[in-house]
Amino acid sequence: MNIGVLGTGMVGQAIGTKLVQLGHMVKMGSRVAAHEKAVAWAKGNGSSASYGIFSQAAAFGEMLFNCTHGVASLDVLRLAGEENLNGKVLIDVSNPLDFSKGMPPTLSVSNNDSLGEQIQKAFPKVNVVKALNTVNAMVMVNPGQVHGGDHTVFLCGNDAAAKSKAAAMLRSFGWKEETIIDLGDITNARGTEMILPLWVRLYGVFQSPMFQFKIVR
Amino acid sequence: MNIGVLGTGMVGQAIGTKLVQLGHMVKMGSRVAAHEKAVAWAKGNGSSASYGIFSQAAAFGEMLFNCTHGVASLDVLRLAGEENLNGKVLIDVSNPLDFSKGMPPTLSVSNNDSLGEQIQKAFPKVNVVKALNTVNAMVMVNPGQVHGGDHTVFLCGNDAAAKSKAAAMLRSFGWKEETIIDLGDITNARGTEMILPLWVRLYGVFQSPMFQFKIVR
Repeated sequence: MNIGVLGTGMVGQAIGTKLVQLGHMVKMGSRVAAHEKAVAWAKGNGSSASYGIFSQAAAFGEMLFNCTHGVASLDVLRLAGEENLNGKVLIDVSNPLDFSKGMPPTLSVSNNDSLGEQIQKAFPKVNVVKALNTVNAMVMVNPGQVHGGDHTVFLCGNDAAAKSKAAAMLRSFGWKEETIIDLGDITNARGTEMILPLWVRLYGVFQSPMFQFKIVR
Repeated sequence: MNIGVLGTGMVGQAIGTKLVQLGHMVKMGSRVAAHEKAVAWAKGNGSSASYGIFSQAAAFGEMLFNCTHGVASLDVLRLAGEENLNGKVLIDVSNPLDFSKGMPPTLSVSNNDSLGEQIQKAFPKVNVVKALNTVNAMVMVNPGQVHGGDHTVFLCGNDAAAKSKAAAMLRSFGWKEETIIDLGDITNARGTEMILPLWVRLYGVFQSPMFQFKIVR
């Protein structure tokens, strides 16, 4: 499949690389035509990997990953262009973490709204699926790295078919069927984004990002 | 030990009963001298169980549990009286869940502050330990009911000795040493309170409160 990855950071790189390994054609998008991180990433990933500005990556992809900083995501998606997003599945991996006021970060939106919802509202014809935002970048594409893959990934969104496609993508990343919890509609992004503050604190306790939430029953 | 339990709801009842079973003397506090739930609870729990107004329960306890609704907790603690709280360990089990705007509930404080912090700030001479607020009442006092007890309870607070006492109490409730994660100071209450929105959604998905967060590494 042709996939657009928006963002050149650790998350975009991890997901982009995994997608290429899985046989997809991937275009990494950024604000500039030849972002040095995107250029280096494409060079390291062969002929299936390319790069461009956000709108080019969005136009290229049949499916899209939002791997940008949450506080910039809405702006990025406007740059990507509604016409390049509409009708597509957008897997929103971002978190509205605001580091501008120092540590620990706060959330720029939370409680009675969420970034996932803001994106869905701003782009009503996009099938937004919030997923993977509670997971470290390395673990997103290699869940077995933590506790043998025995932990949880949440997803939510308004469109059942889009969630099916997102879940299939997660399984191709290595997530076992039983580790994927579909919470329901996109308003559930409040819940998954609001566990980030605890995630950040646990990172501090363990001095490592290699941990995961697991829901046990 | 003499212990004061503030609140007559499911959490107060579960914790109060467990404490009596463990051999403690327990006074359950409420707004009125003879709250029907407190009276019924005391009747069912023998001579170690008593009840009274908040200030009486607070004065009685060497250790205290705040099991009130989070939106009322500060008010309750003012009624309990600073002089009855100072110098004591207060295990704050409450959550600032606000159901007044309908479902799903929002948090009345979050993000850059927390109820745990507000309590600590309002009562600087109390040793506040936030704990158990991410756990269903039945599971708090019987962790083995979910997944053989193999899941996580968080605690945080500013005073190391108080956290030690709280952790010992948790172990007496059945929590294994390795399931207790000390996050650090009381500002970590932001993290543990902010996972409640996800908890509420998971309750909806499972149609049961018998699940738990487990941190795996």
